[in-house]
Amino acid sequence: MNRPEPIDDASLVATMRALGLGAKAAARELALASTGAKNAALTAAAVALRAATPVILAANEKDIDAAKARGVTGAFLDRLLLTETRIAATADGLGAIAQLPDPVGATMAAWDRPNGLQIERVRVPLGVIGIIYESRPNVTADAGALALKAGNACILRGGSESTHSSRAIHACLVEGLRAARLPQAAISLVPTTDRAAVGEMLKGLDGAIDVIVPRGGRSLVERVQTEARVPVFAHLEGICHVYVDKDADLARAVPLVVNAKMRRTGICGAAECLLVDASGSQTFLAPLVTALLDAGCEVRGDAATQSADARVKAAGADDYGKEFLDSIIAVKLVDGVDAAIAHIARYGSQHTDCIVTEDQDTADRFLRRVDSAIVLHNASTQFADGGEFGMGGEIGIATGKMHARGPVGVDQLTSFKYIVRGTGHVRPG
Amino acid sequence: MNRPEPIDDASLVATMRALGLGAKAAARELALASTGAKNAALTAAAVALRAATPVILAANEKDIDAAKARGVTGAFLDRLLLTETRIAATADGLGAIAQLPDPVGATMAAWDRPNGLQIERVRVPLGVIGIIYESRPNVTADAGALALKAGNACILRGGSESTHSSRAIHACLVEGLRAARLPQAAISLVPTTDRAAVGEMLKGLDGAIDVIVPRGGRSLVERVQTEARVPVFAHLEGICHVYVDKDADLARAVPLVVNAKMRRTGICGAAECLLVDASGSQTFLAPLVTALLDAGCEVRGDAATQSADARVKAAGADDYGKEFLDSIIAVKLVDGVDAAIAHIARYGSQHTDCIVTEDQDTADRFLRRVDSAIVLHNASTQFADGGEFGMGGEIGIATGKMHARGPVGVDQLTSFKYIVRGTGHVRPG
Repeated sequence: MNRPEPIDDASLVATMRALGLGAKAAARELALASTGAKNAALTAAAVALRAATPVILAANEKDIDAAKARGVTGAFLDRLLLTETRIAATADGLGAIAQLPDPVGATMAAWDRPNGLQIERVRVPLGVIGIIYESRPNVTADAGALALKAGNACILRGGSESTHSSRAIHACLVEGLRAARLPQAAISLVPTTDRAAVGEMLKGLDGAIDVIVPRGGRSLVERVQTEARVPVFAHLEGICHVYVDKDADLARAVPLVVNAKMRRTGICGAAECLLVDASGSQTFLAPLVTALLDAGCEVRGDAATQSADARVKAAGADDYGKEFLDSIIAVKLVDGVDAAIAHIARYGSQHTDCIVTEDQDTADRFLRRVDSAIVLHNASTQFADGGEFGMGGEIGIATGKMHARGPVGVDQLTSFKYIVRGTGHVRPG
Repeated sequence: MNRPEPIDDASLVATMRALGLGAKAAARELALASTGAKNAALTAAAVALRAATPVILAANEKDIDAAKARGVTGAFLDRLLLTETRIAATADGLGAIAQLPDPVGATMAAWDRPNGLQIERVRVPLGVIGIIYESRPNVTADAGALALKAGNACILRGGSESTHSSRAIHACLVEGLRAARLPQAAISLVPTTDRAAVGEMLKGLDGAIDVIVPRGGRSLVERVQTEARVPVFAHLEGICHVYVDKDADLARAVPLVVNAKMRRTGICGAAECLLVDASGSQTFLAPLVTALLDAGCEVRGDAATQSADARVKAAGADDYGKEFLDSIIAVKLVDGVDAAIAHIARYGSQHTDCIVTEDQDTADRFLRRVDSAIVLHNASTQFADGGEFGMGGEIGIATGKMHARGPVGVDQLTSFKYIVRGTGHVRPG
C-alpha cells in the first residue's frame, strides 16, 4: 500500500488546527461570496474533473489495487471503483448544483409587527462543515460542492482506502475555487489518513467546526456518537420497512416491494424488512415472497412466511432490525397497521418506511404515527434520495431530528438570521 | 434553608433515568395528542395557577428568605421574586400559548415531482426537551407550556434557589395535564436540587433527552458546553452592540441607545456596548454619552468618550465584550461601519446587534455582514424577544446556528418529517 508517512501526535494536532483556522477564515469570505462566484467555481471544477479523468482513473487504480491486495469484498470494491461514466456523472452533479438556486440570503419568512417593525428571516451559511466519509471517493466532489453552494467552508476526511482517488478529485475542486478567485481553504481535504485526525475533527478543531456530517457505516457512526463534542447530523443505518396492508392492491404491492429491496441493495433507502398484514396474508404473502425469491433475493421469514415458499429460510431474532445492504430481506406477519407501526418503532432506524394500501385512513394513520424522517404511501423506499426529492443532491440522509432530517441538501446546510427594520423604534414598558 | 435531603449517587441516577423513561413514554403520547387536549391542559393550568396564587406566594417567600439569609444581591432577588402581578402575567402567558396555532402537523412545504410523487414536509415534535434554568421560577410555566404546545415532553430542572416556587408552579401544570387527561410525565420537574442531576441530564438519560435548553448565566452555559453529550440550543451571553453611524439621525439615535441600554438592564437583549462612528463623533458622541449618564448609566469609554463628558470612566480592556447586565455601558469610537462589524465579530456573542443610520447601503452592509441571530436597523436591541417577534413566547434566545437561532418559540421546538404519496411508484434505474 502506498500510504503517506505517519505523523506524530503533536504534528497531527497542529496540522488539523491549521486546517480549522484556514477553513474558518475561508468560511467568512464564502458567506459573502456572490452566487456567480460560487457557481463559477462549481462549473470550473466540473470542467477540471472531466479533463482530469485519466489522472483520476490512475489514482483510483492505486486504491483499487491496494484494496484487492487486502482481499476486500465485491460491494466494497464497487463503492470504491471509479469509471469514466462515474466521473462524468460526478461532473454532471457539480453542474446540477451550480444550477440550484442560491440558498444564502433567501427570505424564509417575512412579517410586519403591529408597531411597524419589519421582521425577515433569511438563510445564512452554517460556517465550517466537517464531513467524514468512507469508501466512495465521489463524496469528495458531492459534499464539497453542496457545502460551497450553501456558502460554507468544509473539511473533508475521506476513507484511507480511497485516499488517492479523493486527492485527485479534490485537486479539481481546488482548481475550480482558484478559477473563481475563492479561497482554496474553502474545500480542504485532510492530508493524513491517520485515524487520530477524525478524533481531532470530532473535538471541533478549537471551535472551528460548526457541524460534523458522518457518512459511513455503523462503526463510524458509533465513533462519531461517542466522541463528537460538536453538533452532528446523525445518520444511523437505513433499516427501512415496507408494510403491505390487507387493503393493498397486489398488482402495485409486488413490483413496489421488489423495487424497494432489489433496485439497489447497497443504499440506505433499500428495504430490509417486509411486514405483511396477517389478515391479507392469504392474498399477499406467497406472491410477494415468490417475487422476491425469483428476483434473486434471500428471504428470511417467520413460520408463516416459510410455509409460503420452500426456499424461505428461518429468520433469526437478529434478522429484524438488521441493515443487510445485500439481497436479503426479513419478512414477518403482523396484526394490522398498529402492529406494523409498533414493529417499526422497535426495530427501525427512523430513516424511511412505507405502507402499501388502498385505504386512505390506514395510510394516514401509518404516515402520522411512524416516526421516521421519510414515510411513504404506495411508493418505493428507494425514493429516499435528495435528487429524487428535487433537492439537486444530498450529502446523506439525516435520521436525527435536530436541524436537518431526511435528505441533507443545500438548504439543510444553512442556518438563518433575523433582520429587523425599524424607524427609530424603542421598546416601551 | 429548607433543602430536600441529599440522595446517594445510585439513587440519583435511578431517579433521573426513571424520569427519562417516563418522559419518553409521555412524548410518544403527546406527539399524537389533539390540539384541543393540549390547549385544554394549558387553560386548566392557567386557572390552577391563579387559584394557587397564595400557595405560590408562600412557597416563594421561603425561597426569598433563604436567599436573603445567604445575602444575595438585589438583581438576583428580583429575578427570584414572585408577586400577584407576576403570577397573573404567567397565567396570561399560558393562555397566550393556548391561543397559538398548533405547530404539530403543519405543512411547511409541499411539492409534486415530475413523476407524480407528492412530497410534503410537516412539523413533528422533537421528543423530550431538557430545560435547565436558574433563578426565575416562572420559567417553569413558560418552558413547560411551550414544550407541551409543540407536542414535546419536558424535564425541567430549576435552580435550587427557586425550588419551592418552581414546585408550586409545577403542581399547577400537572393539574392542567390531569384535567386534559394527558400524561403527567409530560412536564416533569427534577425532584432533587443535587447538582449531579444536571450532569445526568447532560448525558441524556440513556437516550431519553433529545435536546437540552440551558437558560442561565455563564457558569451554567459553560458547564453545558463542556459536559453535554446530547444536542444543545446554545445560548451564550447577550453582548449586544449598538453602532451609531455618521449618517444616523441624532433625534432617533439618542432615545434608541438609551432604550437599548436602560429599559431593562438585566435581560439578554440589553445593549452592553455603544460604538460611535468616528466621522460622526462631533455630532453624536457627547449627546449620546450625556443622555446615558443622565439616565443613570455608568459610561466606560475610550479617550474620546472620556473627553465628551467628565463623568465618563476609563474603559478597561475587558469592558469590551462584557455582559454587564447592569446600568453600565462600554463606549468606543470606530472608523466606520466596517470597523464596527469587525469589533462586533471580535467582541460580540452572535446574539443581537443594531445599526443606527439613515443610509440604506450602510445599513444593508451591516445587516448582511454581522453574523448574529438578530440584526436590527434603527430599532432597539430590547426587541430581541419572542413575544416582540410575534412568536407568543420563548424559552430563550439561541445564539448557536444549529436548528434554532434567535427566539426559541413553539416552532423552534419542533422537527419535521417528509410524507411522500405515490400510486405504486417504483424507482427506475
